[in-house]
Amino acid sequence: MNQRIGIIDLGSNTTRLIIMAYEPGCCFHMTDEVREIVRLAEGVGDHGTIQPAAMYRAVEALKMFHALCRATGVQRIIATGTSALRDAPNKDEFLQQLKDETDLDLRVLSDEEEAYYGYLGVVNSMPIDNGFVIDIGGGSTEITEVDARQFRHWVSQPVGIVRLTERYVNSDPISNKEFRALNNAVTKTFEKLDWFHAASGRTLVGIGGTVRNLARIDQKRRKYPLERLHGYKLSLETLENIVAMLRKKTVSERANVSGLNSDRADVIIAGAVILLQLMKQGGFEEIQIGGQGLREGLFYEHFLQDRKPPLFDNVREASVYNLARLYDYEATHADKVRELSLSLFDQLQPLHGYGSWEREILGAAALLHDIGVQVGYYDHHKHSAYILLNTGLPGFNHREVALLTVLVRAHRKGDVKTGDYKAVLERDDTTRAEQLSALLRLAEYLERSKSQVVRRIEVAIEDAAVRLLIHADGDPIPEIWNASRRASLFEHAFGRSLEIIEASVSAPSPS
Amino acid sequence: MNQRIGIIDLGSNTTRLIIMAYEPGCCFHMTDEVREIVRLAEGVGDHGTIQPAAMYRAVEALKMFHALCRATGVQRIIATGTSALRDAPNKDEFLQQLKDETDLDLRVLSDEEEAYYGYLGVVNSMPIDNGFVIDIGGGSTEITEVDARQFRHWVSQPVGIVRLTERYVNSDPISNKEFRALNNAVTKTFEKLDWFHAASGRTLVGIGGTVRNLARIDQKRRKYPLERLHGYKLSLETLENIVAMLRKKTVSERANVSGLNSDRADVIIAGAVILLQLMKQGGFEEIQIGGQGLREGLFYEHFLQDRKPPLFDNVREASVYNLARLYDYEATHADKVRELSLSLFDQLQPLHGYGSWEREILGAAALLHDIGVQVGYYDHHKHSAYILLNTGLPGFNHREVALLTVLVRAHRKGDVKTGDYKAVLERDDTTRAEQLSALLRLAEYLERSKSQVVRRIEVAIEDAAVRLLIHADGDPIPEIWNASRRASLFEHAFGRSLEIIEASVSAPSPS
Repeated sequence: MNQRIGIIDLGSNTTRLIIMAYEPGCCFHMTDEVREIVRLAEGVGDHGTIQPAAMYRAVEALKMFHALCRATGVQRIIATGTSALRDAPNKDEFLQQLKDETDLDLRVLSDEEEAYYGYLGVVNSMPIDNGFVIDIGGGSTEITEVDARQFRHWVSQPVGIVRLTERYVNSDPISNKEFRALNNAVTKTFEKLDWFHAASGRTLVGIGGTVRNLARIDQKRRKYPLERLHGYKLSLETLENIVAMLRKKTVSERANVSGLNSDRADVIIAGAVILLQLMKQGGFEEIQIGGQGLREGLFYEHFLQDRKPPLFDNVREASVYNLARLYDYEATHADKVRELSLSLFDQLQPLHGYGSWEREILGAAALLHDIGVQVGYYDHHKHSAYILLNTGLPGFNHREVALLTVLVRAHRKGDVKTGDYKAVLERDDTTRAEQLSALLRLAEYLERSKSQVVRRIEVAIEDAAVRLLIHADGDPIPEIWNASRRASLFEHAFGRSLEIIEASVSAPSPS
Repeated sequence: MNQRIGIIDLGSNTTRLIIMAYEPGCCFHMTDEVREIVRLAEGVGDHGTIQPAAMYRAVEALKMFHALCRATGVQRIIATGTSALRDAPNKDEFLQQLKDETDLDLRVLSDEEEAYYGYLGVVNSMPIDNGFVIDIGGGSTEITEVDARQFRHWVSQPVGIVRLTERYVNSDPISNKEFRALNNAVTKTFEKLDWFHAASGRTLVGIGGTVRNLARIDQKRRKYPLERLHGYKLSLETLENIVAMLRKKTVSERANVSGLNSDRADVIIAGAVILLQLMKQGGFEEIQIGGQGLREGLFYEHFLQDRKPPLFDNVREASVYNLARLYDYEATHADKVRELSLSLFDQLQPLHGYGSWEREILGAAALLHDIGVQVGYYDHHKHSAYILLNTGLPGFNHREVALLTVLVRAHRKGDVKTGDYKAVLERDDTTRAEQLSALLRLAEYLERSKSQVVRRIEVAIEDAAVRLLIHADGDPIPEIWNASRRASLFEHAFGRSLEIIEASVSAPSPS
């Protein structure tokens, strides 16, 4: 990957830089993230005028970001500013000073643009067709409606965690009276949003620090097995329990709550109340955490500049190919393993009874099974599993990531190990993982020489046995021998013996 | 990496292919290994004539290897054969048949060449200056002397595990009488080797399956924390215990010994006795396991073709840079972090008292600290640690790999965690790791903007404090602010408070 782009977002409290390395039309990943607290909105008062000290801090931070970009080979920088700048009467002065000192052209986003880029980040990293994205910030809360993957409409309400905390939270722990007043204020703000309500097929996604922190608290309480927030589901009931727990604690007690960043201990109650009220008023039973937002949205607009709007056709597919290409996968081999796996899957449908969802998981595992080779050839199945578990894979939920991890881990040898992921798997997923792993392993050994010698597999299902008739281009003996040696997982998973025969040297199939 | 080479080794029992991806003068890693049991020596009798069935099996396996090489973009294949072919009167017939069917030119190695390539594999993957390499095979045992990293001389003795087992092991478990006879035969064979003896600075290295299996048995018994045999040390005392345990068991009981490949259960006693006698006669207290041999040696001859002999100048350095380049490290940033870490190390010598060994470990950790970014930017310190632990890093022993893993894991944040590696670390390594990690973390944050803004650090050590005077090219305020925020590890590790000041704005240093 020879292209690098830096994306800067200057907010009211914090400014962040991410650097993405990419190859156009191929793949991308984040190589850096830096965050500086500049408190640009400090002391702005009612006029919104940025104070000299804040301006100085912001310019210094952006100078550092600029130096970092230059030093790491970034060819292009997209710098944006949001509400604090938007509302400042002296923003031109700031922009000119920044230009003079760093040569950076900072683009001030309108509130609609800000909501739009957040939406782009979400819709390109989660399989959401219809629903809402909510972003609870310091001074305001944005709600965006997604309709058939399009940016439908949005609203920004002036209730934010800092503003509400200052106004309603004065006792420590918060008194019942204050808590009720806070609740009422939030309720009143959102009761007009008649278009914001749950319905079948409508997903609720939350981005930003408030929602992430609440989900992290839940993960810590559950001793959740994955180090992953993106795609995590927080239920209304859990959120109610968390609010009940938090409101009894003082600020300093809250600072010790596992999963909560201590610098959010003061404002988390207001944030939790906003989220709770929104979910209740909209009738949502759960919210999914989104790990991508504004900055990623700006990246996707650039990376997908040939598409209008800049959306992947299929987030899950894009995500799998992105990961495969990052690890320089052997496409011909991986495609063949996928083709053979899926052919086995389709022909064995009467035995397993699975549908398109399992088929997609199997296909993705087939494409990704060898990505761990870069870490080390020996045990590369373990390394592939480690990468899958830790790399993100946007578009897949946690259960799916766990299944994929188990499948690639088992593609060569060993037992199918689901034990570590019990908390995210369903009860019958062990059987599911064993059956799918068995197919992947067979396909892998039937493509042992990586030279696509097996053209087609014909499956015959009998009462006590499954027979694979191998149609080959060339000599499939090593493949058949190797696959036959690894039949035990199949025989265990499907409760039938397995026989693999070369088509040309066997009797014609009875069908 | 656009170059790929396939290396084939056709032995008496097994044939193996490895594929190495590489970029000349830069880096390399193994992308494939395939092993087929062809039993080329089966039924050769006294004449050594390869039988038609064995010839057929070998040609079929090599055809498969050849197809795999073509399918995975290998530009060049080096195919070699060893003893079974060397001794066969009909080897030309075999070579011609192979040439006709695969167009492969197979090179038959002399016994000296075989020993030489094994030596090249060892000396390019272990920091051995003087010592011996032993390879216990099925029909013979080779001993090579390494003198100032050169191939000094070698001997091959016709005692191997298959030959000895056939001749001496007929009862099950082995009877005391047979065990004594086996011992005597081995003793007699090696007693003439007057040049094979321990001395200060002489390392004993063992390659091949026998030694690996014995070491694996030891690891399993100890519940060893690393998944790593290369560089593992097996002591004479442990080996004696293992032999005492094995000789009491029947073949089928041995097949269940954890760590022992069941297909070696029959021959492991003979192998263990050969190794034990060799160590005793040579006066060696321990043997190190080498994970590389003949095939890797052939690769190094090609990869290092500009060097005569084809040796890395410094195995450890070559290994660190190879890994850094495989993960496309940011050289300028990594070099600067290394420079700053080492400058802190040198100036703080009065406090830590460490020497060149710790300095080298710190420098290597600095070069490798960011390699995990490819897996994911968030938590990349954990991914760097995972890669280090699993990737090999030839030239470093297990304690060093564990220390490096702990250091890169701690380079950004969190506690210094040595707990998982207690079995390979020394008692004072927790302090060592904390002090070195503290320096690495400071250097990392003093190079926060990755733009080499810190030119030089001047350290002043006081009774209760350490002061760093930062000489900068440009504005080092973000680096100083960030490093200061992470001072707690330093203060804990060195028991002194830390103050970081910019040189130009502070009073002149008292020194």
